[in-house]
Amino acid sequence: MPLLVMKFGGTSVADLARIKNAAQKVKREVERGYDVIVIVSAMSGKTNELVGWVEQTSPLFDAREYDAVVSSGENVTAGLMALTLQEMEVPARSWQGWQVPIRTTSQHSAARFLEIPRENLDAKFAEGFKVAVVAGFQGVSPEGRITTLGRGGSDTTAVAFAAAFAAERCDIYTDVDGVYTTDPRIASKARKLEKIAYEEMLELASLGAKVLQTRSVELAMRYKVKLRVLSSFEDTDETSGTLVCDEEDIMESKVVSGVAYSRDEAKMTLVTVEDRPGVAAAIFGPLAEAGVNVDMIVQNISEKDYGSHPGSVTDMTFSCPINQVARARKALEDAKAEGTIVYDDLVVDTEVAKVSVVGIGMRSHAGVAATMFKALAADGVNIKVIATSEIKISVLIDRKYMELAVQALHDAFALETAN
Amino acid sequence: MPLLVMKFGGTSVADLARIKNAAQKVKREVERGYDVIVIVSAMSGKTNELVGWVEQTSPLFDAREYDAVVSSGENVTAGLMALTLQEMEVPARSWQGWQVPIRTTSQHSAARFLEIPRENLDAKFAEGFKVAVVAGFQGVSPEGRITTLGRGGSDTTAVAFAAAFAAERCDIYTDVDGVYTTDPRIASKARKLEKIAYEEMLELASLGAKVLQTRSVELAMRYKVKLRVLSSFEDTDETSGTLVCDEEDIMESKVVSGVAYSRDEAKMTLVTVEDRPGVAAAIFGPLAEAGVNVDMIVQNISEKDYGSHPGSVTDMTFSCPINQVARARKALEDAKAEGTIVYDDLVVDTEVAKVSVVGIGMRSHAGVAATMFKALAADGVNIKVIATSEIKISVLIDRKYMELAVQALHDAFALETAN
Repeated sequence: MPLLVMKFGGTSVADLARIKNAAQKVKREVERGYDVIVIVSAMSGKTNELVGWVEQTSPLFDAREYDAVVSSGENVTAGLMALTLQEMEVPARSWQGWQVPIRTTSQHSAARFLEIPRENLDAKFAEGFKVAVVAGFQGVSPEGRITTLGRGGSDTTAVAFAAAFAAERCDIYTDVDGVYTTDPRIASKARKLEKIAYEEMLELASLGAKVLQTRSVELAMRYKVKLRVLSSFEDTDETSGTLVCDEEDIMESKVVSGVAYSRDEAKMTLVTVEDRPGVAAAIFGPLAEAGVNVDMIVQNISEKDYGSHPGSVTDMTFSCPINQVARARKALEDAKAEGTIVYDDLVVDTEVAKVSVVGIGMRSHAGVAATMFKALAADGVNIKVIATSEIKISVLIDRKYMELAVQALHDAFALETAN
Repeated sequence: MPLLVMKFGGTSVADLARIKNAAQKVKREVERGYDVIVIVSAMSGKTNELVGWVEQTSPLFDAREYDAVVSSGENVTAGLMALTLQEMEVPARSWQGWQVPIRTTSQHSAARFLEIPRENLDAKFAEGFKVAVVAGFQGVSPEGRITTLGRGGSDTTAVAFAAAFAAERCDIYTDVDGVYTTDPRIASKARKLEKIAYEEMLELASLGAKVLQTRSVELAMRYKVKLRVLSSFEDTDETSGTLVCDEEDIMESKVVSGVAYSRDEAKMTLVTVEDRPGVAAAIFGPLAEAGVNVDMIVQNISEKDYGSHPGSVTDMTFSCPINQVARARKALEDAKAEGTIVYDDLVVDTEVAKVSVVGIGMRSHAGVAATMFKALAADGVNIKVIATSEIKISVLIDRKYMELAVQALHDAFALETAN
């Protein structure tokens, strides 16, 4: 029996009417002859509510308890989706992570898949169940505790199931009808892409385009999972949405494919750090241990010589998700107290955003950075930090300029047209 | 190490401030030298929200999915409570039913305990954890699916853990400061009882007093668990609340101890049932299979002889929880369609309530029924169904008279005074 994976995000299952709408899409695929694994997110807003409670209770929370709490939203949707399908005469049942079981590492709140054994689901498909509704975002650790994959993890769950069950396709149903050159809510000229390369999608996802979670795209690329992003709220067929695929399948030749942004950034600067070999490791080791996802790193070498620092000193700046500032601060202050790092001050700026341009064409085209900086300068946007990779350029700017910057860059690279 | 079980109901963990308040009570017991098993309910209103979603999705729901959905509320509270205790430097972790594992039967939504193995929790206590926070109301079936114990099941979970771990006491923290002669919200003269016999509590609980779940009291009686009901919202000590204990420990000698009521009743009447040996079994067998909790049953033998029914006929009336009417109706209509029951009509009255007087003293005192009926008649309350047991008398009446009836009976038996 051919098998499809269909994933519905939070807004697609936000209430009972939407769950029903999603279930109708599942039923149609069953009627076409597919067995279906449905991956569901929590109802829109639920995970935020749960995360809020955890953070209010315990700012430096025990990630095992965080996972136990926040995973509950997906369990609710999975049960409701199974019930909705049953009402439509589609034989379905729900699966929580530990029931599959979805085996992951013990890295709570950022767990990685170890194994998704097929036995239990295959047995139910063999019994005549047409649909397995699986709670996304969660798994179970070797110690038997509930883990989660990090925000947006349901996409990753979907791709992992598509790979494990050799699904014909992995359809990600969401509140947008595909991947756009940028967020249409910010730039009205944004244009839907028919296709996008895994690699570009990866940069867009990790830079905050919010359509697909980074790791889901990595996983899709590694296992060559046909990944499609499409709308839950429209009638869709096999040509709808945006296909995420190999680079060679894409004919468009724009230098820049899209403009991404992220609001949830914070900039942290260690002022007057003693500069010596190993200082970067001394700083970023404790941050990694504390589970801080450091993104951009800039070191300003300055040959200032302060009395308290006999050697040369430097300022070290990095960015991380805004909700990890507390634990980053604690890790750095602990390291300072232990004497493993020496610095004068820790300056935190939580009023920043990251804006990036992405495109495979950048590999063979010079001048992208110049165009980008010129466009930002023309609108008076000051750049605080710059980071580049082979196919993207990112800047950290004041958050209040974020929308302006996205629009300016979309115009500068003429993304509203396909060629 | 002496061990306490402390159970906090929905209103006691309704928000983060209340969870913190509850955690402080736990911490105090830890400081007194106890290991503590904390059983938590869902935050007030959460289970109702989940049940509402399930019922809207599927009126004749698959109970396995119902359980998977509604059990999630307790998991949230368990995690938040563990985090709150950790913030207070009390070593704690949360446990979901399948992690303990709390083994139950497969009777979904009304599962019964099979076994609560001590190994996993004992191992953690041995490691230095002082508190195990266990999600109430839930368990896991032999098939590995999530089960629930029925509404209010967290009380039963608490008593079962108290029995399994030989706890010194099982304290049920709730939104009232003890067990009253009736609901003080209905009768302002209601009086708090210092002690109440297991058997009386059992009748009060099953009759809708809502302070403790029936099965928790049964279980406490069987295992002689010292059960105490007390308020989460007051400063409490070892003499607070109401102790549920053996009959012989009670000196009070009132004939009637309390007046209980239940709003969630429906009355169903099968009109003109063919009356033959086995007809009751033919009716109540399918209802039991459909999971309908039939409560009161009345059969009016009438020697009417209709053309369509050559033998004698009868009307059969029973009551059941109002939310089981849909499945009761389906079971009866299916049985009629299959020809196993013959009846003319099925009349459902969902506008009824049950009011009961309870007291161990009734065993040795005549005239309680007469006093009860006279009091109701004096206030113009018509009685629809009567049922009696050794220590209680229950009547089904129009729901609109319920408060009036409770007050009249409380006065009639002078329950506002202790002697």
